Amino acid sequence: MIIETHIKQFSSPLYLESGRILEPYQIAYETYGTINSDKSNVILLCHALSGSHHASGTYDGETKAGWWNGLIGDGKAIDTSKFFIISTNVIGSCFGSTSPMSEQYPSSEPYRLKFPVVTIKDMVHAQIQLLSDLGIYHLKAIIGGSMGGMQALQFAVDYPNIADEIISLASTYATRPWTIGFNKVAVEAIRKDPRFMNGHYEKDAFIENGLDGLALGRIAGHISYLSPDSMDNKFGRNYVAKDGLFELFGRYEVERYMEYNTNNFSKIFDPLSYLYIVKAINTFNLTRGYDSLYQAILRIKSKVHLISFDSDYLFFPKEMEHIHNMMKRNGQYSTYINIDSNYGHDAFLVELEKFDYIIKNILED
Amino acid sequence: MIIETHIKQFSSPLYLESGRILEPYQIAYETYGTINSDKSNVILLCHALSGSHHASGTYDGETKAGWWNGLIGDGKAIDTSKFFIISTNVIGSCFGSTSPMSEQYPSSEPYRLKFPVVTIKDMVHAQIQLLSDLGIYHLKAIIGGSMGGMQALQFAVDYPNIADEIISLASTYATRPWTIGFNKVAVEAIRKDPRFMNGHYEKDAFIENGLDGLALGRIAGHISYLSPDSMDNKFGRNYVAKDGLFELFGRYEVERYMEYNTNNFSKIFDPLSYLYIVKAINTFNLTRGYDSLYQAILRIKSKVHLISFDSDYLFFPKEMEHIHNMMKRNGQYSTYINIDSNYGHDAFLVELEKFDYIIKNILED
Repeated sequence: MIIETHIKQFSSPLYLESGRILEPYQIAYETYGTINSDKSNVILLCHALSGSHHASGTYDGETKAGWWNGLIGDGKAIDTSKFFIISTNVIGSCFGSTSPMSEQYPSSEPYRLKFPVVTIKDMVHAQIQLLSDLGIYHLKAIIGGSMGGMQALQFAVDYPNIADEIISLASTYATRPWTIGFNKVAVEAIRKDPRFMNGHYEKDAFIENGLDGLALGRIAGHISYLSPDSMDNKFGRNYVAKDGLFELFGRYEVERYMEYNTNNFSKIFDPLSYLYIVKAINTFNLTRGYDSLYQAILRIKSKVHLISFDSDYLFFPKEMEHIHNMMKRNGQYSTYINIDSNYGHDAFLVELEKFDYIIKNILED
Repeated sequence: MIIETHIKQFSSPLYLESGRILEPYQIAYETYGTINSDKSNVILLCHALSGSHHASGTYDGETKAGWWNGLIGDGKAIDTSKFFIISTNVIGSCFGSTSPMSEQYPSSEPYRLKFPVVTIKDMVHAQIQLLSDLGIYHLKAIIGGSMGGMQALQFAVDYPNIADEIISLASTYATRPWTIGFNKVAVEAIRKDPRFMNGHYEKDAFIENGLDGLALGRIAGHISYLSPDSMDNKFGRNYVAKDGLFELFGRYEVERYMEYNTNNFSKIFDPLSYLYIVKAINTFNLTRGYDSLYQAILRIKSKVHLISFDSDYLFFPKEMEHIHNMMKRNGQYSTYINIDSNYGHDAFLVELEKFDYIIKNILED
């Protein structure tokens, strides 16, 4: 499946939760499958912190498939022969939507640290504008994992009539200090990296060598995406063959993995975008804007499906279960399953065979 | 209790596990209580990564008590009216024992990165030399938590006849990649900090402003020392009053805590020492030097007492339980208790009332 990215530009302003205005703005997105005549087969897909709108297929001339390619396609769990999937890039991301490195109208200078803080609520609000511009006023389902799952839940609360089904994986109702702590490593490491220059770096400055600060932050990130047991299985106490056990900087396999992956990531992800998206995750709280979590949840009219992973050390299963229990008590429609896995948080990106049938059943029931 | 630090200098070399030699070397230590005539009341205390030999009492003119002051004293769990406690500073530490900032004989220049890698086995070996020099050939008990608990277990394996009782808290039989991952943040952050200058910084260079790299590494450390629930209790989602929710660098309480504590730590702890001690933790593996973990454990003759904490996210309870089960199967004497706590790894330094009676019972039985 060869995929193209679309860019939707909006001329009307986006009113942000902070009271600030983003204008003009744009959203990058992709679509998979074909929309039917009554537009009743539309699914919205929301991505996680390090993801993008590129969820499925490959770009012309490239080989790397989208982040949920195993789940999306002809006959797959999210069946492109039946559904029309819109996968959008969040506001603030460096992959095509308006971001801190976008020009701050009316100047041609990037916003950098003058970019307004955006929240999960704002990301969702922007996607509502996109749907509206595409003439889509109702969705079959909204699906997302991690930060994508936050967006799915925020849609459910803020726009109770928008979707029949909400599927949220490996997510939460409000980000806990544990996760804010992990993010803090990235925030401080980026800010303190001299090459970050308080946001005044050249565009593409890090393509060749990456940015140490972002790479450092990602080491903490990778810990939280895995689990103690998955690391045992993946790395054990294996030592990098050429490194000596008694060399101070000799490395265990887990250390090489961290170095390699985080350095690569810092070459492709913009550090300002990272700071802003992490801020959106930190400030995520379904309660904000309502009297209580109970009042927020009570607004939901969609069927909500919550999927957690046993060994998720970033967003713990009990956080999803809390939403489920609240909805059940209210007599709202909710299903919850905790998947047996030792892969950690990243299971939602990796162990697709453990939950693809659940998603298929929800969508095709 | 006013305490003084002693320094013991050794003229004979310390043969290290790496094959390298440390010469000359010295160990800083403190003692509490009075040794009896037959030297049968001696307890050895081993400290953790960020600790020192200053476990109890206060120095003349200071107010801050040692790290286990609540546990050590007249009538306390480790009763100074009954026992003579020797608390030593590990080789590599910046608090008085020979370290990377010590002069490399015969020059007067510090070792810096030429300091040999030291292991938990080496730390224990050095303490054996100290005991020997003090004319002490048998101990009532060896006690330690975290890295101190590693030392206690390494004593049990390497020197089966040295102690009657081994008490190891919040520790493990071998460091897992999960923990090595957390340590990796510190290793990379220190190395990449320009002010670290590959170890060629001036002595006391960081007393005033600290070292960002070490502070960054400690943020990851603090995450691993707490737990998701303890962070909920300690910080919740509280925001620092003067910071705005929609300011990019506005902070949650958990973020302020991380900033404050880690920056302070980086003013008092030497970054080279940190790198070497972290290396000792990473390379800790009771199996090394023996055919298998089973063969290593089988050597133990002391009574071993293992105490874990339910919510320890650094060294998980099952790691201690694994040792206990192995010893039980072998018919060796071992007790194991998993303390109900949501404080995380740091419980061994904080929730003393949850296990002080256990230690008292072991020592006075």
